[in-house]
Amino acid sequence: MGIAATMISDWRRFPISETLVDARVQEESILTTWSDGRLSPFHFLWLRDNCPCDRCVHRLTREQVFEIVDAPADLAAVSAQPDEAGGLRIRWSDGHESRFDAGWLRANAYDNVSRAERRSRPPKRFWRAEQTEALPVFSFAALAADDGALLDWLRALRDVGLTLVKDVPLESEAVTRLARRISFVRETSFGVVFDVASKPNPDSNAYTSINLPPHTDLPTREVQPGLQFLHCLANEASGGDSIFVDGFAIAATLRGRFPEDFEILATTPVAFWNKDTVTDYRHSAPIIATDASGDVTEIRYSNSVRGPFDAPADLMPGLYRAYRRFMQLGREAQFRIVRRLEPGDMWGFDNRRVLHARTEFDPNSGKRHLQGCYVDRDELLSRIRVLERDA
Amino acid sequence: MGIAATMISDWRRFPISETLVDARVQEESILTTWSDGRLSPFHFLWLRDNCPCDRCVHRLTREQVFEIVDAPADLAAVSAQPDEAGGLRIRWSDGHESRFDAGWLRANAYDNVSRAERRSRPPKRFWRAEQTEALPVFSFAALAADDGALLDWLRALRDVGLTLVKDVPLESEAVTRLARRISFVRETSFGVVFDVASKPNPDSNAYTSINLPPHTDLPTREVQPGLQFLHCLANEASGGDSIFVDGFAIAATLRGRFPEDFEILATTPVAFWNKDTVTDYRHSAPIIATDASGDVTEIRYSNSVRGPFDAPADLMPGLYRAYRRFMQLGREAQFRIVRRLEPGDMWGFDNRRVLHARTEFDPNSGKRHLQGCYVDRDELLSRIRVLERDA
Repeated sequence: MGIAATMISDWRRFPISETLVDARVQEESILTTWSDGRLSPFHFLWLRDNCPCDRCVHRLTREQVFEIVDAPADLAAVSAQPDEAGGLRIRWSDGHESRFDAGWLRANAYDNVSRAERRSRPPKRFWRAEQTEALPVFSFAALAADDGALLDWLRALRDVGLTLVKDVPLESEAVTRLARRISFVRETSFGVVFDVASKPNPDSNAYTSINLPPHTDLPTREVQPGLQFLHCLANEASGGDSIFVDGFAIAATLRGRFPEDFEILATTPVAFWNKDTVTDYRHSAPIIATDASGDVTEIRYSNSVRGPFDAPADLMPGLYRAYRRFMQLGREAQFRIVRRLEPGDMWGFDNRRVLHARTEFDPNSGKRHLQGCYVDRDELLSRIRVLERDA
Repeated sequence: MGIAATMISDWRRFPISETLVDARVQEESILTTWSDGRLSPFHFLWLRDNCPCDRCVHRLTREQVFEIVDAPADLAAVSAQPDEAGGLRIRWSDGHESRFDAGWLRANAYDNVSRAERRSRPPKRFWRAEQTEALPVFSFAALAADDGALLDWLRALRDVGLTLVKDVPLESEAVTRLARRISFVRETSFGVVFDVASKPNPDSNAYTSINLPPHTDLPTREVQPGLQFLHCLANEASGGDSIFVDGFAIAATLRGRFPEDFEILATTPVAFWNKDTVTDYRHSAPIIATDASGDVTEIRYSNSVRGPFDAPADLMPGLYRAYRRFMQLGREAQFRIVRRLEPGDMWGFDNRRVLHARTEFDPNSGKRHLQGCYVDRDELLSRIRVLERDA
């Protein structure tokens, strides 16, 4: 076992910033000391479980084959010490030996300081109408050819949530050429690519010419599509402006000014149903999703496919107060980025954060044709990680 | 407005079991009395919000176009009374009129009794090795041709979680012919259809010949694939038996015998990472997911793609105790349905409930070739609802 063997369980790089200077075997763990003085305990079972040797990890798939249930109940370290590279070398009571690289061990240490370090995040930045000119804009040609530009775009999609791509070829399904730079397209009941135009027998208000209030797409599904791309092929009709609202900005405003309303929308499940002849999707979840630290992680909202509220009668007045407030905020000009799509424009946005809307248009005044597709958040984050490996 | 107008917001049927016999306008709601004596309050805003008339709901898409934020803050019912069909007729202070069908109103009433009625569920049935002979078995021909058989199969997938389909044609991609009877196939980084065979450069332990311990597929994704189908095209190798474990049965046993361990696995996020050259999926979630009532809704578990535990040091011993216990239960013969796949067999199972495993096989002793694909839970439930509309 050497340095090489320690890398087979993960493709990331683990540069060595600090090294181990001491390791003491205790009752059920090894207490290590780093060159910067940090103390990190590592339990015997944790270390044995993560042994990166090629008996424990498959050398081709990098997947673990060892199962920790096969360690003896009284497993203990017979000896443990820093090695010449500042990593950790251990001999186990069952005869096995393990060696951990300093970079990997530091990156996965679970003392309180290391855990807090890993959890720190830059604060989210929200946007409003006044930021319209500052929105990230990219060119189709650069995204199609250059992985560096692609990575910039994907980070903007992840962190800002709204991007414009210019000069996309005026060809059917060009929208998927950029989507496939990320990964495969998420198919839905509307197809792999959907055409947004006024249709004679619409199965969604999107396929009429009426005003579409701000909404996320497919709240009727357990996981809403992560990214939505809308490519404008023609826009000659009068009306039909596009509107984007940062749902996280609305949620932050709601939380600051009307904390009770925020709380209600963050905890009350709301049902969303589609109303189709051939599918019948239903999902219930709060309109505002938060994570364990209370940060807003998702907005799920489309009035047109909402089911009746199903809440205890004494909570109904508060729920309507909160819901009406949320709707009202989505109408405030300060939150609305209003743009008229030009042929060749493609908007890419985080469909789990950004509400999009469209004003009514006159289908007899000219052609209006957008094409869209979805890519899931898993695919976005995976692609960013792989591009960052090479960056 | 008449009966027809009341139906446009939902495709389900709402048979009338009870009718309204009284309606009293109160301060912010209407208190209704049903023919069986049940009292159901309906708030003004709730009723106005759900008005099914064709000014409020688009007559083609059946989607709501009215937005409740446009109701005046002091909206009130001027009058409300049961009509001749036992439904509810209302005149509003802003001049609008609404009429609700008795069947729809009863189905969506939110008094405590009605809500409890809607929430009652038959208890889940779990299975063990001794139920092997009782598992639901279907024939390919019936499922391909008959919507009644299809509905039976889909209900078994939803409620039992493990089914066998016999006499599937020995043709490449036959597995998708049944999947597409439900909906489209969920594409993943492994493709639309994946071939399970021993491969020279495997990117997953599944594509080697080694023992695969019980696991769910793709815990590295935010939502694990809902259904997995595995179609056996050839199985001439020695070894390679298939094993299925009801993850809900293990969770129930853990909860009954070791409640602290259950609690730890139901609350501690565990990271799952794939270890691939071209993708890098990561997701953290508890191994056992529970819903608001505490019922187990999902198992997420694959030791081979698990990341290092990242929990506070003082919780680490308890986490390993619980994790080892869970692994140990998955090895107990009482939980393991062991079957040798025959060519033409296709197993369909709930990948968010059922752990599957495979014993080691000898790739030099004969050919072993399975084909698989995934369909998401959203698609399963939607298809069941649509088939039930016609049943």
